[in-house]
Amino acid sequence: MRSLVFENSGMRFEERAKPEPGPGEALVRVSLAGICHTDLELLKGYMNFSGVAGHEFVGVVEAAPHAAGLVGSRVVADINIGCGSCPRCYSGDSRHCPSRRTLGIQGWDGAFAQYLLVPLANIHLVPKALDDHQAVFAELLAAALDVGQQVHILAGQKMAVLGDGKLGLLAALGLRHACPGLVLLGKHEQNLAIAAKYGVTTAKVDEAEYLGPFDLLVEATGSPDGLNQALDLVRPEGTIVVKSTVEAKSSLDLAKVVVNEITLVGSRCGNLNLALKYLETGLVDATDLIQAEYPMSEFKEAMTIAARPGALKVLVRMA
Amino acid sequence: MRSLVFENSGMRFEERAKPEPGPGEALVRVSLAGICHTDLELLKGYMNFSGVAGHEFVGVVEAAPHAAGLVGSRVVADINIGCGSCPRCYSGDSRHCPSRRTLGIQGWDGAFAQYLLVPLANIHLVPKALDDHQAVFAELLAAALDVGQQVHILAGQKMAVLGDGKLGLLAALGLRHACPGLVLLGKHEQNLAIAAKYGVTTAKVDEAEYLGPFDLLVEATGSPDGLNQALDLVRPEGTIVVKSTVEAKSSLDLAKVVVNEITLVGSRCGNLNLALKYLETGLVDATDLIQAEYPMSEFKEAMTIAARPGALKVLVRMA
Repeated sequence: MRSLVFENSGMRFEERAKPEPGPGEALVRVSLAGICHTDLELLKGYMNFSGVAGHEFVGVVEAAPHAAGLVGSRVVADINIGCGSCPRCYSGDSRHCPSRRTLGIQGWDGAFAQYLLVPLANIHLVPKALDDHQAVFAELLAAALDVGQQVHILAGQKMAVLGDGKLGLLAALGLRHACPGLVLLGKHEQNLAIAAKYGVTTAKVDEAEYLGPFDLLVEATGSPDGLNQALDLVRPEGTIVVKSTVEAKSSLDLAKVVVNEITLVGSRCGNLNLALKYLETGLVDATDLIQAEYPMSEFKEAMTIAARPGALKVLVRMA
Repeated sequence: MRSLVFENSGMRFEERAKPEPGPGEALVRVSLAGICHTDLELLKGYMNFSGVAGHEFVGVVEAAPHAAGLVGSRVVADINIGCGSCPRCYSGDSRHCPSRRTLGIQGWDGAFAQYLLVPLANIHLVPKALDDHQAVFAELLAAALDVGQQVHILAGQKMAVLGDGKLGLLAALGLRHACPGLVLLGKHEQNLAIAAKYGVTTAKVDEAEYLGPFDLLVEATGSPDGLNQALDLVRPEGTIVVKSTVEAKSSLDLAKVVVNEITLVGSRCGNLNLALKYLETGLVDATDLIQAEYPMSEFKEAMTIAARPGALKVLVRMA
């Protein structure tokens, strides 16, 4: 099978053997994969990554030794693969298993290949009515919606999402149902326009101080300086949910956190079932977030486009 | 009156006129003042400070034009002085008034002088049974106890206080009543011994990994690297309450916060009434935290001693 391998800040195609699913695994033929900000960071060396990346995908189960009924089903997947035998895993939380592997990120080959293995426990069926081009957003939307699982969003709060990239847009589109007045703060007019189309109040970041200070801010800039920007916009005793994973250590104005008694909440992955439900019922329509779609053969071009500032979701058709 | 003035990273005595209390103020003769870590930072240039520092004190009201009944009372004080006419102040929270002054820190002369002015709203009477050497700890103990006002401490949590300086010790002595199993992590054997005397479990920081990971950590190191140390000791989805105010910007491993979904809570000042009650009832006995006491004439020597690593509370007798 054809695989895309990241190594030493470069990428190459490689022909690899189709993997053999073990007892608790499914072999999934990848239909569509999405390029994530994290993939761009992995290519730059985040997590000392080398291998097959890709953790946003939708595919079809081709084989599953212990779950034959799954064959032919369209699926998406949780990306955290726990060891299965530690207190965290026993409590049902493989996301924080200390020896977890992460699909396409650490210790487990991802979806930038024609096939990948997925543990059965990680599989979520895609509802029939939901097409691949929406389902491929499930993992990212789950991460965006996780904000509402971590902090109690109140309808009357002054809330803002900082960053109008893919994650910021999905956060705005998803979390507005809990806080209708939320404001999306960004830099890219065409991206802000997508949120505005759905009734989200939008503003340029440099106008944000007139709208703040905010009770609750979601930092989704993907930039090492995003947190300091957020600190300037949050009210004393307010909360910032931090979504950006960046390779560089961030220089944080810690005195501001302490003096203004700010709460920072780190936030990573979310609940795929919730995301699929939001997509299925149309609470979030991700169609406008697609920037471009490429065949696998044009993966390098796809990565280049995905790396442009303000780029929306670049999809790659793998099969 | 004799005053100690900080300016350009130096200090000098200066003879100043005794201040005149306005309608809402009291003139307080300072009995005893404490030197705080923040004072050492102010001398180094934190907040671009120049003037009379000193925010930990106990004194006696000498005049109060609109509250004559206070004259002769022993008092301590809240250090945040709100503008009195903004939404924050109207809501009763002058601590976060955007144009607040802070006694001995910003815009209001502090207690390193024979007299200072204190707004009547900031005054707390010292219970008769509480002597000056305990009451002088009220402000710092209030800051330590504030952890329990910001996060819900549970008796069964794995909790640690990181840092065995004055604030860390008071946090351990005060918060152990909510979480009897809490561990104080420090570097100074004589300081750890004080907490151990009251039944607190103690350990050296480099042994901490065997005791962790912790659900809840109070970062009270006073060091720019304290937060990164704490991040290595907290469990996924755990909470770090950050108490250290340091001048330098901190280099934070933000990816760790996001990936492990850590909550950071900045924490500054606390409730003086609560602290006075803890001291009055003996829930916290601060006696062992006194390193030394100097007369005002030996203030420079007092500052030198207070600046030593691991130094406990250095008191200065002002009157």
